Amino acid sequence: MSRELQISAYDRGLHYGDGLFETIVCLRGRPRFLREHLERLAQGCARLGIALRTPASLGAQVIGAAAHGEDCIVKLIVTRGATAERGYRVPRALDPTVLVLRYPYRAPEASLIETGMRVRLGSLRLSESERLAGMKHLNRLEQVLAREEWSDPAIGESLLASRSGELISGTMSNVFIVRNDILETPLLALCGVRGIMRGMVLRRARTAGIETRERAMPWSENERIGECFLTSSVLGICPVRELDGRPLAVGALTRRLQALMAPLLTNEGGEDG
Amino acid sequence: MSRELQISAYDRGLHYGDGLFETIVCLRGRPRFLREHLERLAQGCARLGIALRTPASLGAQVIGAAAHGEDCIVKLIVTRGATAERGYRVPRALDPTVLVLRYPYRAPEASLIETGMRVRLGSLRLSESERLAGMKHLNRLEQVLAREEWSDPAIGESLLASRSGELISGTMSNVFIVRNDILETPLLALCGVRGIMRGMVLRRARTAGIETRERAMPWSENERIGECFLTSSVLGICPVRELDGRPLAVGALTRRLQALMAPLLTNEGGEDG
Repeated sequence: MSRELQISAYDRGLHYGDGLFETIVCLRGRPRFLREHLERLAQGCARLGIALRTPASLGAQVIGAAAHGEDCIVKLIVTRGATAERGYRVPRALDPTVLVLRYPYRAPEASLIETGMRVRLGSLRLSESERLAGMKHLNRLEQVLAREEWSDPAIGESLLASRSGELISGTMSNVFIVRNDILETPLLALCGVRGIMRGMVLRRARTAGIETRERAMPWSENERIGECFLTSSVLGICPVRELDGRPLAVGALTRRLQALMAPLLTNEGGEDG
Repeated sequence: MSRELQISAYDRGLHYGDGLFETIVCLRGRPRFLREHLERLAQGCARLGIALRTPASLGAQVIGAAAHGEDCIVKLIVTRGATAERGYRVPRALDPTVLVLRYPYRAPEASLIETGMRVRLGSLRLSESERLAGMKHLNRLEQVLAREEWSDPAIGESLLASRSGELISGTMSNVFIVRNDILETPLLALCGVRGIMRGMVLRRARTAGIETRERAMPWSENERIGECFLTSSVLGICPVRELDGRPLAVGALTRRLQALMAPLLTNEGGEDG
């Protein structure tokens, strides 16, 4: 990892969090779900009005970084660029900054994916904004603060509510619940990140004839959750085996989805890249 | 200005907006309201759990940057630091990053301070979080988007509401209104930045026997605003002469506060630095 890589101290990504990122798992020298990551990034850029000069080169840069051989995580950061001008107003003709950072990848432990994760309920409530919802933007202080709520390494994640009292996601993962054989996940109209893995799971479930539903989920329903799993680009599908101290069984639909997703996750399907 | 200054691409300020900033006007080689800026920064660091190793050296660095002679703006940025670790969790023993950036200072035009600013009403609604409210943190995407709502150079600022429908501030200034001879300003319990100039004006007003009130201000009250001004470290006190197309007279209390603040703003009072 090029620990020494630097950017301008005048980058708007630093000053305002004025940019976006993608976390891309790269296996056997190839980025996983690259097309989907680049698509979400392009949508985010469009929403923020960041004009990438050569969007096509992003994919090539990620592929190049992945090709080093060892499995890795490539974090792709795009900011609005560096400028000597002070203030929120976006200067004309700014050149976006593109950063391609490599991190070591450790596959999630098999026992975690098999038996599931212990999950707590967080107390920080996520702020809401239809302008920012869904995007993987660089304004992530709430996630940092939410992750500081616990240090017990036996707990893997914290579920978070929005200010208006709906279940949204984990600090670094999306959440799914199974209710009456329907696969449900929060709507994310006002906060949260529309995870790539979340989208892949929803799509794969529908293809397999599983009914899915994105809906507003009142936080109070947490007590009645019977089957639950988390998704993220790094985790894939991870069952929840304990929620707020209450044991949960790993459900049949969770197992079925793990099996359905497995070929896509091993990067052998030849679907991306 | 050291346009070439760089920071690590692995800085959490860039990755998450995990840090704070201060914008300090420096006149005749001395930073204005330095003690207050450093105090707010220290409070922000405490709220975010950023442990500055040598907080006392910050002031010296700002004083050093200001001493170059020409009036300037020093932007002080403190982030949680750079790390090779990926993820929101804060690694132990991280060394905060401190950046002292100099920008040219242009005093606000005398005519603007005299006759006032034309101000619009913004449509972006600020998200709410008691965890982040008041701080000058680096998560500023909403301000960037709000500043993109207008390009007419005759309009100087945009007033913004919170999601729950209260008047909060401008995109880069705090707002005061005068009602029944009482100086009122939004409470900022759930969003907005507690500006240094806002605090100085409130304090100076109280000392002069002017009644002040921080309160929740319903956005609908905007129509009834008669006397209004903006404050910021750069602007000082700037009257609003037009709000959403409606002309406002510059009021007597605004003029009185401008006169009361003038000695503090010229940096001749010897109160700071």
